[in-house]
Amino acid sequence: MKAIVIKNPGPPDVLHISEVAKPEPGKGEVLVKVKAVGVNRADCVQRQGNYPAPKDCPKDIPGLEYAGIIEDENGSDFKKGDKVFGLVGGGAYAEYLVAHARTVSLFPDKLSFVEAAALPEAFVTAYDAMVAQGKLQSGQNVLINAAGSGVGIAAMQIAEVLGANYVGTVRSASKAEKLSTYKNIIVAPDGKISDKVLAVFPNGVDLVVELVGGNYVNEDLNCLSNKGKIILIGLLAGRKIEIDLGKVLSKRALIQGTTLRARPLEEKILAASLLQKNISPLFESGKLKGCIDHVLPLSEASKAHEIMEANQNLGKIVLEIN
Amino acid sequence: MKAIVIKNPGPPDVLHISEVAKPEPGKGEVLVKVKAVGVNRADCVQRQGNYPAPKDCPKDIPGLEYAGIIEDENGSDFKKGDKVFGLVGGGAYAEYLVAHARTVSLFPDKLSFVEAAALPEAFVTAYDAMVAQGKLQSGQNVLINAAGSGVGIAAMQIAEVLGANYVGTVRSASKAEKLSTYKNIIVAPDGKISDKVLAVFPNGVDLVVELVGGNYVNEDLNCLSNKGKIILIGLLAGRKIEIDLGKVLSKRALIQGTTLRARPLEEKILAASLLQKNISPLFESGKLKGCIDHVLPLSEASKAHEIMEANQNLGKIVLEIN
Repeated sequence: MKAIVIKNPGPPDVLHISEVAKPEPGKGEVLVKVKAVGVNRADCVQRQGNYPAPKDCPKDIPGLEYAGIIEDENGSDFKKGDKVFGLVGGGAYAEYLVAHARTVSLFPDKLSFVEAAALPEAFVTAYDAMVAQGKLQSGQNVLINAAGSGVGIAAMQIAEVLGANYVGTVRSASKAEKLSTYKNIIVAPDGKISDKVLAVFPNGVDLVVELVGGNYVNEDLNCLSNKGKIILIGLLAGRKIEIDLGKVLSKRALIQGTTLRARPLEEKILAASLLQKNISPLFESGKLKGCIDHVLPLSEASKAHEIMEANQNLGKIVLEIN
Repeated sequence: MKAIVIKNPGPPDVLHISEVAKPEPGKGEVLVKVKAVGVNRADCVQRQGNYPAPKDCPKDIPGLEYAGIIEDENGSDFKKGDKVFGLVGGGAYAEYLVAHARTVSLFPDKLSFVEAAALPEAFVTAYDAMVAQGKLQSGQNVLINAAGSGVGIAAMQIAEVLGANYVGTVRSASKAEKLSTYKNIIVAPDGKISDKVLAVFPNGVDLVVELVGGNYVNEDLNCLSNKGKIILIGLLAGRKIEIDLGKVLSKRALIQGTTLRARPLEEKILAASLLQKNISPLFESGKLKGCIDHVLPLSEASKAHEIMEANQNLGKIVLEIN
């Protein structure tokens, strides 16, 4: 089969289509013919050699989310031809992938493969961070940093669905303009967000969906109300920061790191269950909508990475396989 | 009545007995004749002018925990003469205090006033951090920093009761010697604890009860297993640290600040309920035991603070009022 293989770590142009062996489903697994793959920031980090794949995944084929067709149901409850989507620890930039059957879900009829592939990482990450971990309730205030990213857009929509109030931050006015259908978008090119957030929510925020990391975490601490939570998902702005633990203590704040990829199977199955039972119905009813920026063929994976690394995309980039 | 009043912030010798007005219980409150008061590190910080009392407490009388006798039950379910104990936001270094009736509990018969007064802060703080917040389960591993403090000793005993495994750290061999009845006490004069903790628990710890703060938090992060939690209670070693958020993310770690004093009434009532329903029965049955280092008369409050600030005490210092 054809797949994008990272032979050596490096810039986007190390991504080339190669011919590799078609994977074979093991016990409990299904074989999926991939029709579309969502591109994630983590794929870029893996390409650079800084985010090795988990043990049970292809080492050198990136790709964390897919939509496709069941090719070999291998004794599971699926039927050959079922249209499915889901999260994997890697290997989705390929014509075929294997996934544990319990991590695979049928996707809403009204969605195309491209729309379905754009959805799992962004919406499961946001939903898991806000609901499963952040325990966000209606009427509460949530701050979403990097509001123009796939997860950011998902988080704003989920806040709306939950009856929570939100503020989203972006670094450029042009991104804010593209997000004009969303409320309370703050532009802060210098990352100094706390005064602007507190102008919207003078009592502070109950939850932060933190996709940027670095010094944003200190800004977040300034924005938190008592017992507020920071769910840390991304670290684009850096890992090492000076932090004032006094603020953590006096606000009784909670900082929690989260990642989908490193989870063990049982938690990946729980994540798949969020996708199937909580998120898909909201797509069926039209309360959630994907946001796709670019669709490219799999062979142009390198271009997809270039766009993402230049921060040019608003919402998701999807690779299509014909 | 007599009380210790902080007229001006300063060293221990600013603490003097003064004559002040006896407080009057308001609606929902009882008047308690105080027989003994536990001394806490927070009292020293308040004396230094760095930990102002909450609005609804005496501004200038320290004291966060007491044992005494109901003097005016004021329509509550208590009877005059009941032997009670509890937590207050301040004002316990005095012959009388008022407290909301729902935050007051009868204490186990077998305890003296001094023993009862030594108990609430240490055991509620530890129990709340480990059980209510840390969700510690039997079989899990917990790291307790400043194991020789009142909270540290309480935490080790609670770990034992819960069927959890623990390691306690202290800075001096002499403290370790005094803690010889406890398991796994690590001496680390330089605060470099992580290698020593991981030698005991190679798979890491599920929970840290962090009473020291500062760079201990980075050591804690090294010790955590995946999804481990750091409950941050004290900051003796400093507030500002450089932290690696990458570790928080990759371990899916949780860091949570907690303090009893700043809590609103409804949460103080919940804390009192822990004392009454969870902790007192374990004292009745002898599974938990207080650890009292020094008992002094109220008039020697300044000496009590000197001992505490010299880190000479192992366990609690209690002031007695005759």
